[in-house]
Amino acid sequence: MTAKLIKLGSAALIGLTAMSAPALAEETMTSGESAYIFNTLLFLMAGFMVMFMAAGFAMLEAGMVRSKNVAIQCTKNISLFSIAGIMYYLVGYNLMYDGVDAGFIGSLSLWSPDDTGALADVPAFGEGEGYAAASDWYFQMVFVATAASIVSGTLAERIKLWPFLIFTVVLTGFIYPIQGAWQWGGGWLSEMGFSDFAGSTIVHSTGGWAALVGAIILGSRYGKFGANGEINVMPGSSMPLATLGTFILWLGWFGFNGGSQLALGSASNAIDVSQIFINTNMAAAAGVITAMVLTQLLYTKVDLTMALNGALAGLVSITAEPLTPTLGSAAMIGAVGGAIVVVAVPLLDKLKIDDVVGAIPVHLFAGIWGTMAVPLTNSDTSFYVQGVGVVSIGAFVVLASLAFWLALKFTIGLRASQEEEVLGLDKAEIGLEAYPEFGSGSQRI
Amino acid sequence: MTAKLIKLGSAALIGLTAMSAPALAEETMTSGESAYIFNTLLFLMAGFMVMFMAAGFAMLEAGMVRSKNVAIQCTKNISLFSIAGIMYYLVGYNLMYDGVDAGFIGSLSLWSPDDTGALADVPAFGEGEGYAAASDWYFQMVFVATAASIVSGTLAERIKLWPFLIFTVVLTGFIYPIQGAWQWGGGWLSEMGFSDFAGSTIVHSTGGWAALVGAIILGSRYGKFGANGEINVMPGSSMPLATLGTFILWLGWFGFNGGSQLALGSASNAIDVSQIFINTNMAAAAGVITAMVLTQLLYTKVDLTMALNGALAGLVSITAEPLTPTLGSAAMIGAVGGAIVVVAVPLLDKLKIDDVVGAIPVHLFAGIWGTMAVPLTNSDTSFYVQGVGVVSIGAFVVLASLAFWLALKFTIGLRASQEEEVLGLDKAEIGLEAYPEFGSGSQRI
Amino acid sequence: MTAKLIKLGSAALIGLTAMSAPALAEETMTSGESAYIFNTLLFLMAGFMVMFMAAGFAMLEAGMVRSKNVAIQCTKNISLFSIAGIMYYLVGYNLMYDGVDAGFIGSLSLWSPDDTGALADVPAFGEGEGYAAASDWYFQMVFVATAASIVSGTLAERIKLWPFLIFTVVLTGFIYPIQGAWQWGGGWLSEMGFSDFAGSTIVHSTGGWAALVGAIILGSRYGKFGANGEINVMPGSSMPLATLGTFILWLGWFGFNGGSQLALGSASNAIDVSQIFINTNMAAAAGVITAMVLTQLLYTKVDLTMALNGALAGLVSITAEPLTPTLGSAAMIGAVGGAIVVVAVPLLDKLKIDDVVGAIPVHLFAGIWGTMAVPLTNSDTSFYVQGVGVVSIGAFVVLASLAFWLALKFTIGLRASQEEEVLGLDKAEIGLEAYPEFGSGSQRI
Repeated sequence: MTAKLIKLGSAALIGLTAMSAPALAEETMTSGESAYIFNTLLFLMAGFMVMFMAAGFAMLEAGMVRSKNVAIQCTKNISLFSIAGIMYYLVGYNLMYDGVDAGFIGSLSLWSPDDTGALADVPAFGEGEGYAAASDWYFQMVFVATAASIVSGTLAERIKLWPFLIFTVVLTGFIYPIQGAWQWGGGWLSEMGFSDFAGSTIVHSTGGWAALVGAIILGSRYGKFGANGEINVMPGSSMPLATLGTFILWLGWFGFNGGSQLALGSASNAIDVSQIFINTNMAAAAGVITAMVLTQLLYTKVDLTMALNGALAGLVSITAEPLTPTLGSAAMIGAVGGAIVVVAVPLLDKLKIDDVVGAIPVHLFAGIWGTMAVPLTNSDTSFYVQGVGVVSIGAFVVLASLAFWLALKFTIGLRASQEEEVLGLDKAEIGLEAYPEFGSGSQRI
Repeated sequence: MTAKLIKLGSAALIGLTAMSAPALAEETMTSGESAYIFNTLLFLMAGFMVMFMAAGFAMLEAGMVRSKNVAIQCTKNISLFSIAGIMYYLVGYNLMYDGVDAGFIGSLSLWSPDDTGALADVPAFGEGEGYAAASDWYFQMVFVATAASIVSGTLAERIKLWPFLIFTVVLTGFIYPIQGAWQWGGGWLSEMGFSDFAGSTIVHSTGGWAALVGAIILGSRYGKFGANGEINVMPGSSMPLATLGTFILWLGWFGFNGGSQLALGSASNAIDVSQIFINTNMAAAAGVITAMVLTQLLYTKVDLTMALNGALAGLVSITAEPLTPTLGSAAMIGAVGGAIVVVAVPLLDKLKIDDVVGAIPVHLFAGIWGTMAVPLTNSDTSFYVQGVGVVSIGAFVVLASLAFWLALKFTIGLRASQEEEVLGLDKAEIGLEAYPEFGSGSQRI
Repeated sequence: MTAKLIKLGSAALIGLTAMSAPALAEETMTSGESAYIFNTLLFLMAGFMVMFMAAGFAMLEAGMVRSKNVAIQCTKNISLFSIAGIMYYLVGYNLMYDGVDAGFIGSLSLWSPDDTGALADVPAFGEGEGYAAASDWYFQMVFVATAASIVSGTLAERIKLWPFLIFTVVLTGFIYPIQGAWQWGGGWLSEMGFSDFAGSTIVHSTGGWAALVGAIILGSRYGKFGANGEINVMPGSSMPLATLGTFILWLGWFGFNGGSQLALGSASNAIDVSQIFINTNMAAAAGVITAMVLTQLLYTKVDLTMALNGALAGLVSITAEPLTPTLGSAAMIGAVGGAIVVVAVPLLDKLKIDDVVGAIPVHLFAGIWGTMAVPLTNSDTSFYVQGVGVVSIGAFVVLASLAFWLALKFTIGLRASQEEEVLGLDKAEIGLEAYPEFGSGSQRI
């Protein structure tokens, strides 16, 4: 190719609408084996992008907590990602996908790539629907980790390490897979016609509900809410790391939503994945600008943390349906997400729910919004069924996580002592400092 | 595959030169649909790599400014990326690509994937040239954002947030797309035979010219240039973040240049993209080493910021023609880029032009060099026409950005007050600190 | 696709075991040209992921050294990556791959994509084994850089810049390529049946041996080991950057191991690459959890740096054979890697070998373990031959690097003066500070 215009000229001839039906002569079609490779490649590529979101959450949280709690937050993030991978192998995947059969739960068994058909199944192969079983497992596994990441941010700066990790075991091994079985595993919700393309509810609200229940049981950080109703700002230790984390999450979300197309083996799939990419970007962009304009109008100053959370809320909002909206609709959906953050963050403060990084507005509230907005652009869905999905999954996750949070609270205990909290969990729990040479140690509170 | 040597043995048999013409039996060729998927995949993959460059710019700039201006720089970077995505949808893309027809400008209309042909156009499909329209839009959109990122670095630490954002609206919605139409949109410059493969001029110099004009109008930071001609060094707050940003940009550049091949649907395209990858890397490497050796010789010490900018200048230099050079030529082109940085940074200081991150040498000067160097390795181009492109685009961007910078200056004002500048824009403009717990607050000036 | 369950339903029909032999009807197979593109794409994609590992090493090391040595560490990392790219072009690639022919060394010549066959070789093309020569070079080149990165971490905070860079020239241009020729170049070790899929020995132990020899010759940091046998902890300056670096390395490792399949042009290859991805992840996860549990048990506190190094040791351990293990076996292999780190870090301290970032346990010891563990899951290999590979490559790298380290020591000198070391190499060697506004300057020793 010698010049962009040549390709773009041909684009005018053969560019395609996202909705047009393919009608190809046999000899121009992708072969079954090529489709198999494309599908697998999509899982692997989208999967490693979602895996990198673990680093995004780690940086976002490291930037949003005070310096005395940065290293423990890093510890939680790398260990929760590890736990998710192990638990999803031991029980999660098969609980979610093996033999759900329009019901409520799969089987309790180790996952193995061996229990899935044969390459020689030529007829199905010819349909362009094959992919390597391990690539699918990889892609599903990084989603579980995402749900667990949401919890760690909300509960930062006061929850002890091991109770958090034990909850992560339960969340990634049981709570997430069971509700996931209802929809993505082919369970009763999918039978009803519930639609959650990449997981506004299944991933983000699930993490958000677990975080909300945890935040209520755990209580707020020492000093966050004063006796006379005052709300003390506890500024994050590093805005550039929080910004980096947000950009990494934004990047990873192309894999999160794009990979949820689950196939790249036909031109039609390629068109859909492309549409998903641009809608995802547009929702995030609209979330940022909305949050910035609103904070300027409400507080006379733009707030960077609101802009960052606006991006994430836009992304969560479009996640339930990133394919059917036009770019304009995607912008609207994302903008509402950004607005939700600006409204909900102070609201939680008034309710004395201490959400350190704003994960509840971003993942839970925007997740609900995104799920309920699906019928606006996807006529195959209904507000009623979407509501059933939101409420049933919400109720299950709230009850299940309530049970486990309480069990942990009344056995090994959830919360660091006040002394440890004042000292900082880095020193108290893991015996080191995140930044041993910076600062005076005189952190606020 | 059990051992690398087996594949490498076959490489000796069937490896290919970048220039060899394909001559395949019909049955071994890629099908039209597979080519369509490969082409689309290239846009998506290269696109998300370029998207991540936004994080690279954010980290580079966050590391190169003083800590009192880090959060505002993060704010600018995430919002400019958002604005670019919205404006390119609202006006930019069609202004650049829709009906330019050897002229100066496209149409003023919303972009939509619907206005582009049909999937059923089997003959064109058979040529292997198709791709999803949205994937092309995505790829082009992230390029616009890159141009805007360049401006934010140069003008850091003194420009107010909203005037910067308004200028970004104009740059990404109008200035960039109009000059882009001249070449990539199939306008008059492309008719003349101008060549700028991935945008040394169209992206980097455009950003650089807008930054240069802005820097002159805005003036230097308070205290940068003393009354007696002394130049005060204002060291960046975090060298590791600046280094991280550079590595991210280097990574993204493989997408920037490789994706500009615009197709991956044939073996010949795969060969070209591969050659582009290695030339891009070699130019960056040569830029680093050249800048290090020169600073060692000139100042007796290696300068890290020069090494980082050397990498970026090498990358900008090879961007106008990353395909035709040999690895040796790519190294020479990149080395000159690295040398330009070492020479130009102090030169700008002498001219009292305050470029906080060195973006003008990196993007403008090395961009001009790269564009003028194209005929050295690409015999289809001429120095004369390359010069016409550099001068015409330069003149347009200078005049257009001059008009808008002045308009902003004499309406809402461009520059923070001296008091705000001393306090830092983080506190003055967005009411928070990037690192609230570090440092004494006694930043130098 | 409207719902995940539809794809997952078909997965149950056509998912494949990693080992199943493909038996496809002619018309469903990938064409030769498509295979060529897939293979090339794997090299490019995996290659840019490995390239990004350079940023990972830079952040890991920047976070693990004291703040007075952060900028020099960034300088070393960006320049070693540049040197690796240049040297591998000038001598390395052909020394490793050109005409080794069951022997000990290739040819001393510039690499060029021109010396490799022709695209028109249709029969080989039809076998699905072709790829662009430049994509292979790119992939191999980023591996060399990885080996060099290992050395910079161990020797941090005391080695001078230029001697380090000169050693890097020798390592990347000669030492690495020569031992690499023995196996991946088709030399005598590969003839014997040695197996090192992605380089536990060839990349990681090679870097580790060179680092170990360097650490012994260079001696420990001033103040690290007291006169009375006490070991002084010198905590790293930024735990979040160290964590970020680890996540980036984890991400890049999917490319490192997955790309070492060297082909993606068949369904069988797609299955193998997928299995490699999940085994790689599982080994890392097991390394993290093992290191955490062991540090909790041994020291009553989890140690974040051990958890990070546990991830890396798990990754190094699985690198010699990421394909044949089951997920369960991969977890065991990674867990042993994590345990090695916990045991070996204090052991090195007792031996008064000062390894600043723990690279010797991670890359050398876990690399040896991973190589020796290959026969546990791969019946085509033997402990004896694996041992021959480990010992012969170890002996060569130790002797060669010993010679060069000593040559450097007795000519230009290796080590900064005690005065410079106390001041910090940032100020002493490159005349700037990594964080000029943070901290009191009163770093511990």
